[in-house]
Amino acid sequence: MKKWLLTVAVAASFGAQADEGMWQPYQLPAMADELKAKGLEIDAKSISKLTEFPMNAVISLGGCTASFVSPKGLAVTNHHCAYGSIQYNSTPEKNLLKDGFLAKSYGEELQATPGSRIYVTEAVTNVTDKVKKGLDSKVGNDYYLGIEQKEKALVAECEAEDGYRCKVYSFHGGLEYYLVKQLEIRDVRLVYNPAASVGKYGGDIDNWMWPRHTGDFSFYRGYVSKDGKPADFSKDNVPYEPKSFLKVSAKGVSDGDFVMVAGYPGRTNRYRTANEVENTFEWAYPEGKMLRERFIEIIKETAPEGSDERIKYESLIAGLANYAKNFTSMIEFYGKSTMLDDRKGRETDLATWIKQDKKRQQQYGKTLAELDKLIAEGQENQARDTILGYIRYTTMVPTARKLYRLANEKQLDDMAREPGYQERDMISFKSRMERIDRRYAASVDKAVLLDMLKRYAVLPASERIPALDKVFGIGKMLDAKQLSKTLDTMYANTQLGDMETRLAWMDKSVADFKASNDPFIQFAVAMYDTDMKAEKKDKELAGKLMKVRPQYMDAIIAFNTEQGKPVYADANSSLRVTVGHVKGYSPEDGLRALPFTRLEGILAKDTGVSPFDAPAKQLELIKQKQYGDFYMKSIDSVPVNFLSTLDTTGGNSGSPTLNGRAELVGLLFDGVYESIIGDWGYDPETNRSIQVDSRYMLWVMKYLDNADNLLAEMEIVH
Amino acid sequence: MKKWLLTVAVAASFGAQADEGMWQPYQLPAMADELKAKGLEIDAKSISKLTEFPMNAVISLGGCTASFVSPKGLAVTNHHCAYGSIQYNSTPEKNLLKDGFLAKSYGEELQATPGSRIYVTEAVTNVTDKVKKGLDSKVGNDYYLGIEQKEKALVAECEAEDGYRCKVYSFHGGLEYYLVKQLEIRDVRLVYNPAASVGKYGGDIDNWMWPRHTGDFSFYRGYVSKDGKPADFSKDNVPYEPKSFLKVSAKGVSDGDFVMVAGYPGRTNRYRTANEVENTFEWAYPEGKMLRERFIEIIKETAPEGSDERIKYESLIAGLANYAKNFTSMIEFYGKSTMLDDRKGRETDLATWIKQDKKRQQQYGKTLAELDKLIAEGQENQARDTILGYIRYTTMVPTARKLYRLANEKQLDDMAREPGYQERDMISFKSRMERIDRRYAASVDKAVLLDMLKRYAVLPASERIPALDKVFGIGKMLDAKQLSKTLDTMYANTQLGDMETRLAWMDKSVADFKASNDPFIQFAVAMYDTDMKAEKKDKELAGKLMKVRPQYMDAIIAFNTEQGKPVYADANSSLRVTVGHVKGYSPEDGLRALPFTRLEGILAKDTGVSPFDAPAKQLELIKQKQYGDFYMKSIDSVPVNFLSTLDTTGGNSGSPTLNGRAELVGLLFDGVYESIIGDWGYDPETNRSIQVDSRYMLWVMKYLDNADNLLAEMEIVH
Repeated sequence: MKKWLLTVAVAASFGAQADEGMWQPYQLPAMADELKAKGLEIDAKSISKLTEFPMNAVISLGGCTASFVSPKGLAVTNHHCAYGSIQYNSTPEKNLLKDGFLAKSYGEELQATPGSRIYVTEAVTNVTDKVKKGLDSKVGNDYYLGIEQKEKALVAECEAEDGYRCKVYSFHGGLEYYLVKQLEIRDVRLVYNPAASVGKYGGDIDNWMWPRHTGDFSFYRGYVSKDGKPADFSKDNVPYEPKSFLKVSAKGVSDGDFVMVAGYPGRTNRYRTANEVENTFEWAYPEGKMLRERFIEIIKETAPEGSDERIKYESLIAGLANYAKNFTSMIEFYGKSTMLDDRKGRETDLATWIKQDKKRQQQYGKTLAELDKLIAEGQENQARDTILGYIRYTTMVPTARKLYRLANEKQLDDMAREPGYQERDMISFKSRMERIDRRYAASVDKAVLLDMLKRYAVLPASERIPALDKVFGIGKMLDAKQLSKTLDTMYANTQLGDMETRLAWMDKSVADFKASNDPFIQFAVAMYDTDMKAEKKDKELAGKLMKVRPQYMDAIIAFNTEQGKPVYADANSSLRVTVGHVKGYSPEDGLRALPFTRLEGILAKDTGVSPFDAPAKQLELIKQKQYGDFYMKSIDSVPVNFLSTLDTTGGNSGSPTLNGRAELVGLLFDGVYESIIGDWGYDPETNRSIQVDSRYMLWVMKYLDNADNLLAEMEIVH
Repeated sequence: MKKWLLTVAVAASFGAQADEGMWQPYQLPAMADELKAKGLEIDAKSISKLTEFPMNAVISLGGCTASFVSPKGLAVTNHHCAYGSIQYNSTPEKNLLKDGFLAKSYGEELQATPGSRIYVTEAVTNVTDKVKKGLDSKVGNDYYLGIEQKEKALVAECEAEDGYRCKVYSFHGGLEYYLVKQLEIRDVRLVYNPAASVGKYGGDIDNWMWPRHTGDFSFYRGYVSKDGKPADFSKDNVPYEPKSFLKVSAKGVSDGDFVMVAGYPGRTNRYRTANEVENTFEWAYPEGKMLRERFIEIIKETAPEGSDERIKYESLIAGLANYAKNFTSMIEFYGKSTMLDDRKGRETDLATWIKQDKKRQQQYGKTLAELDKLIAEGQENQARDTILGYIRYTTMVPTARKLYRLANEKQLDDMAREPGYQERDMISFKSRMERIDRRYAASVDKAVLLDMLKRYAVLPASERIPALDKVFGIGKMLDAKQLSKTLDTMYANTQLGDMETRLAWMDKSVADFKASNDPFIQFAVAMYDTDMKAEKKDKELAGKLMKVRPQYMDAIIAFNTEQGKPVYADANSSLRVTVGHVKGYSPEDGLRALPFTRLEGILAKDTGVSPFDAPAKQLELIKQKQYGDFYMKSIDSVPVNFLSTLDTTGGNSGSPTLNGRAELVGLLFDGVYESIIGDWGYDPETNRSIQVDSRYMLWVMKYLDNADNLLAEMEIVH
């Protein structure tokens, strides 16, 4: 209950309280005094410079964060971020997941899973003026496409330099645009990972939970050509030499200590309106949770445990379950909170402030109403759109659609194509088409598609899409048996399950598609006009939102600025810095989550059964109290994981957690259950990130895995 | 893991560490210095005197503890201890359980459930010499009966004084015997209880759990005749005036404060041998857990939810489930502990100490081996005996047996009869026979009996009992269908389901029984010789144990005495004092259970659905932060429950928890999950008792239930 009450009590404004805030590096110098007071010892300015220490040591893996920890391109990230590469290199004979892996020399290092990248951010440029120039008069779809065109041009210009990957990021819903230029290291190799019984200790059971005892770390190394340029894998490549790297602390942190994280948080919704909050928590999350759970049930029914089909779907099940749990937590804590009232209160405060001034009234007087009107428009068909949206988790339907879209887009100049279908996207497009082999079983795909279509078919007539009804033969009343037969025939006759066939379709023309008798290709062709019309409608709305939401954010920023409060933008996968402290919390009245867990907690949790099956050698080391150099007096043991108030979210995984001197003291890998709802609002009482303690990482490396070569390569601060 | 390791590290001896120990009051003066150092402010001697303050204010309800809190016989105990009386006085129209109850005057007070008693301990006399006199040469059954005869004589002599109930308690397995004389107040009335949504808040879900928010208190009043003597209920009776009573503290305790409890703990097993520990945890508890869970399943299958039969069995289900959970905890924590190794270590230490001295060798050299031999004897048929033992939870079989036993015992002089069948036992015997009506359904009784007999029937031939096989027609191979038919016929033809019939059998002769054609009476008659033979065999073993176990305890006491350590006896339902401190604990690495819960925790837990459905008025008071006089600064709220290191067990329920000045600061009502195994060994790290804070009790009385009359009657220390 405290969760939102506190926010109400403290803040009538939007924005940062206590350790809240995902700051863009350029914002930090203005906060230098506050940062110093919190415990930052290095110059705040230095953190704002992306090409200097420590920021140029912080890198992106695309979806995860990592950091360089040696002059020879050694990068540390989470075990779960390197999981794909560990799995990819595992065989029944040499199971890296089960036994762990350590390369004792460069030569023993293994190629990471295909498509693995290390991105080194080299420049972030405010391109707002360039992006918006000349678009003032445009609205809706035209504005949307206008912005997109500018972005593509900026990206193309930026990527003209070989070895770089560029992207334009929108901030505050389109108020500002930044061009990010990243060096793209394409030869990435797996250097070291502990066994899964260390790196994934606690598994899904402990996911989002505290107390935690997970050794969630692994090491990669980036390689470049001899002349220092990004290059495809080659034996002749040499380790990349970063301009700087992080020192690793063997002293670690204590309760209350300052910590900061630099990383690539994915998405937050801190400035959504009360209406969006209400619809999301009271409709979208409950519906999403139900659909995900149904999805999982169908997969499990269709592909029994132990079957080949099941193995292909384990990762999808894990993903669906992960967010079903996420939604469950969100719904639970929303129910206990006053979040909605709080949002309404903030909007009332903002409205009052706007009314106080004529100019403000002119500028922002109608903004919220307009924004809410557009939001309501977007929700009009949400029951249908959500069901159809979940069809993206099936395989054949989206695959056929994407392939036919590609054929259509290819008729255009590269620069005119839809993002995702440009030449620069073809490598990843192809690898997605290849990956399907390992993740698709027709029986499961059909069962899930059937279930979703049945849900669709019982919606009111007004929600139905004629082209879709026609292609699947869905009449006024649902004939489930007939629908099932139709799908059986489609799956029996499609050739898209074959990789070579899929890849061949990447090079075919629109005419080839139209002439095809593959039922899913026919489906994609039949749906195309309808799909394009729907997409245009979506972009029309998106274009409108891209004009109104920035206006709303502008009002919020002005409101906060007047109170001397900086405003950070919602997370958007771009590089951010967040500062905080090592701190426990109260998960429940009468209970306190302590900031550190101890080696002995592994002994207590261990059952010998996965995911609580630490290696025998580790258990023995703990029983012998082999703490070595990594002993922490206040807990009388080696710390395993620790809690911090750091404001993070998905995408931050693998981020280096730094002390005031920017030494690596931990790796961020998760948040606690109570902080899942934090994506919608940071609560200083319960918002906690979970880190692997650097002392535990070093302890495992030294005593359990004898990774002496890496310990020697890193600079360790004692 | 810490649990037992710590014990090993600290203690090579048996017995008390830190706050461990359930002391007989006479032992306290010798510990005066230690008690003072811990925080006792009143004279340790005063606690040893049963007829003075504070001990004469501590009373027994038989199974629970209570204490006088006014000069007019007002007694406070747990809500769950008064539960039967609250239920007994509830009707659909006036539901005291649901709505709570408050008598605003003596006249409004309600008779407690029939058989309710208040026992005031007036004297505890060491009668060891008297009990053992002349029995030195006797062994086995003779020794057993000799002791029993002496006990009965002492009891009869003691009870000659009208209004008293007496009992001889055996300590240290028969090393010492104490005669306890208690005033027996027979007119007990219900004065006040909060609604179950306060008094049973959290229900079975929170049972044995922390954090806890249960207002587990209720008030009784004892009445006596006008001349101050115990008397049956009468309108002319007047409130009993105790010689002293406890003041109630409105200031309460803080973290780390000294507390003590006086009460009637039921049973502990702290001095059992390693062999007994191993057999109990590795065989008896797993088996008992399985049988209880099976028992519950059968009841639920036979009496579906909502049926009349089910209502009759709810309380048995709760009792069975309670100990199934208890066993589950025991098994879990035993598995994590080094308890067995620890016991073996202690036995090795004792053996070493015995070997060091010739005299000791003579005295104790063979004791443990002899004891273990007798224990092994007792376990010989335990698979069978356990199954047959669980038949005691059925109704018809034990009822018939008890009635026939009574007819047989009645042929003897009262003093020669088996305890439980003497004239002094007839009131409770009769009330048990009456109660069956509310707790018996033939369909369920048959189903459970059938299951237990089927389990019996598949045991090896050597375990089978010919008389039992014969009476139920169980052949070499089990014919389950036939057995079920036999039972159907027995239940169809028995009249013992009728109360009048049962009560009539209490007055019939052995010949009447032998002539009866009631199938369960016939069963009891047919089994009688076998039953008596088995009982004699049990007593033979018990008699032997009553000689050897005291010898073993004598060795332990001598061993400890040499190290200057006092020894407390295992709990045996007699009056004990335990001292400790207010203190949290770590239920798990990385988590801390805080010593106090807060009013706000009720708001956070409340779902509106039982057992988390606090009264609306209470929720409103909390929202308004109506803390009044009972605010505790360190937690910024009113404390609800608190944790202490007090060494307690079942039977302690309702005990007053006192501060150093013997003011009531709480009521003990439970222990935490981790301390269930504490009956076998006290662990200072995790052994915690749970108390209702006196401040919460007063807060509920004052603000929620307006019990101003009682608040005025009590002496409250501000």
